[in-house]
Amino acid sequence: MSLHFTAEELLSFMEGVFPQVQGLYAIEMLSEQEVHVRLKVSDMHLRPGGTVSGPSMFSLADISAYLMVLAHIGPEALAVTTNCSIDFMRKPVAGQDLISRCSLLKLGKVLAVTDVHIFSQGEDRPVARASLTYSIPKKGS
Amino acid sequence: MSLHFTAEELLSFMEGVFPQVQGLYAIEMLSEQEVHVRLKVSDMHLRPGGTVSGPSMFSLADISAYLMVLAHIGPEALAVTTNCSIDFMRKPVAGQDLISRCSLLKLGKVLAVTDVHIFSQGEDRPVARASLTYSIPKKGS
Amino acid sequence: MSLHFTAEELLSFMEGVFPQVQGLYAIEMLSEQEVHVRLKVSDMHLRPGGTVSGPSMFSLADISAYLMVLAHIGPEALAVTTNCSIDFMRKPVAGQDLISRCSLLKLGKVLAVTDVHIFSQGEDRPVARASLTYSIPKKGS
Amino acid sequence: MSLHFTAEELLSFMEGVFPQVQGLYAIEMLSEQEVHVRLKVSDMHLRPGGTVSGPSMFSLADISAYLMVLAHIGPEALAVTTNCSIDFMRKPVAGQDLISRCSLLKLGKVLAVTDVHIFSQGEDRPVARASLTYSIPKKGS
Repeated sequence: MSLHFTAEELLSFMEGVFPQVQGLYAIEMLSEQEVHVRLKVSDMHLRPGGTVSGPSMFSLADISAYLMVLAHIGPEALAVTTNCSIDFMRKPVAGQDLISRCSLLKLGKVLAVTDVHIFSQGEDRPVARASLTYSIPKKGS
Repeated sequence: MSLHFTAEELLSFMEGVFPQVQGLYAIEMLSEQEVHVRLKVSDMHLRPGGTVSGPSMFSLADISAYLMVLAHIGPEALAVTTNCSIDFMRKPVAGQDLISRCSLLKLGKVLAVTDVHIFSQGEDRPVARASLTYSIPKKGS
Repeated sequence: MSLHFTAEELLSFMEGVFPQVQGLYAIEMLSEQEVHVRLKVSDMHLRPGGTVSGPSMFSLADISAYLMVLAHIGPEALAVTTNCSIDFMRKPVAGQDLISRCSLLKLGKVLAVTDVHIFSQGEDRPVARASLTYSIPKKGS
Repeated sequence: MSLHFTAEELLSFMEGVFPQVQGLYAIEMLSEQEVHVRLKVSDMHLRPGGTVSGPSMFSLADISAYLMVLAHIGPEALAVTTNCSIDFMRKPVAGQDLISRCSLLKLGKVLAVTDVHIFSQGEDRPVARASLTYSIPKKGS
C-alpha cells in the first residue's frame, strides 16, 4: 500500500475542498500508518479562560481522520464521517497550538476506522482522544 | 425540580459566556426534560454541496446539552463536556436550519447525560444523533 | 416498508443463529419503528450487590439492535455490529428483569443505526442508553 | 505513582469480586501505563462461524480497563464503567485467544479514561478498539 499524496499535496487538496479552513491546519508528519496535524490556535478557537473549545478539538480530530483516509484512497472529496466518539480529558494549555496523532486502524471497502490523540504542543499527556469512522465512496459513484 | 432560567435568560447567559456564538442559536422550546435549539445556518456552517458540516452539527449537539444542563444546575459557566458520541446519518437539507431535540437522561452529582437528535427543519428523519456527558462543577469550586 | 417476521418468528430465527442465548430473551413488542426486548435476569447476569453486569446490558442492547435490523432486512444471520457507544447511568434494580426499547434511526444500504434505552422493569428512568451501528451484508454475498 | 498490586494479586482480587469470571482471563503484562489481558476463548464466547462474539470482546475491554484502574487506585471493588465506545473492525481468528492492550490515558479524581486495542493472538491488526470511562468511588464512600 502506498500513499496517493505527499503531505503538501494532501493539505492543498483538502484546502481546495474546504476553503473555509484555509491556513488553519498544517501537516506535521505523514506516513502510511499515521498523520500528525497541527491546529494553529487563534481567538476563534478559544472558550472562556483561553483554552481551546470542544468543537475546535472535534474539528481537528475530524480533519486528521479525513486526511489519513484520503492519503490512502486518493482524491475522493466525498468521504464522510459516519461516527465519532470523543473524550475530553484535560484543559488544553492556553495559547498553545494543538497537535493530533492519527492512526489508521482499518481500511475496508466501505468503512475506515481511525484513532486520534490530541496534545497541547510540548505536552505528553493527551487533552483528548477520539475514534472516527469514515464511509468510503464507491469508485465512480 | 424546577429550572433556573427561562429560555430567554438561558440564551442570554450562554451568549455572555461564549460571545463568539452570539446570534447563531435560538431556543425553540425549554422544559424540564427537553430543550430544542435552532442553528441558524449560514455560509460558515457549510461544506461542499451546501450541506451543514459535521463540526457545525457537533457544536449544535454540544450547545444543546450545555443549555439543558445549565437550565438545571444554574449559572455555572464551567460545566464541561467529558464525552460525546455522535452518528452522522443523512445529509442535511441544503439551505435549511437545523433543529436539535435534547433530552436529559441523568442528572447526577458529578455527571449529566443527554441524548440529542438533530433534524433539518421540516424533516422527520434525523440527520444526526449524539449522546453527551457533562461534568458538573462542585458548588464553590 | 413492512417487516419480514412476526415477533415469534424473529425470536425463533435469532435463537437458531445463537443457540447459546436460548431462553434468555423475550420480545415484548415489535413494530416497524421499535422493538422492546426483555432480558430474563438470572444469576449469570449479576455482579456484586445483585445488580445486572455491564456486559449483560451490552448484550441486551446488541441483541435488540440485531432484532430490529433483522426484522427489516430478513433472515440475514451475518449482519454484524460495527460500533457501539453505551452509557451506564444507574444501578439496575436488584432482582428485576431489564427491558430495552430500541428504535431504528436509519436503515441504509450498508449501515443501520439504532438507539436503545434500557430500563429495570417497572422503572421510568433508564439504567443505560446505547447507540449501535450494524453493517448490512450484501444480498448474495 | 506506583501500583497497588502485582499482576497476580490483581487477578486474584478481581476474581474474588467477580467469581463468575474465574479462570477466564490472564494478565500477560502489567505496568503503570499498560495492562495486557488474555481472554481464554472457549465455546461460551463463540458465535456462528467460530469467531468470538461482540459481548465477549466488550467484556474483555471492560475487564482490562477495570484492572488498569484498580492497579492505580487499589482494592476498590466499586469502580464502575460509565461509558464505553467500541468499534468492531475484523472477525477474530477462529480458535485463537484474544489479547487486549489497555493504556491509561487519564486518572482524575472522579473519572479514569482508558484505551483498549484487542488482537487475535499472533495477529498484528486489531479486531476491535474501545475506550472506556470509569467512575472512581470516593475514599470511604
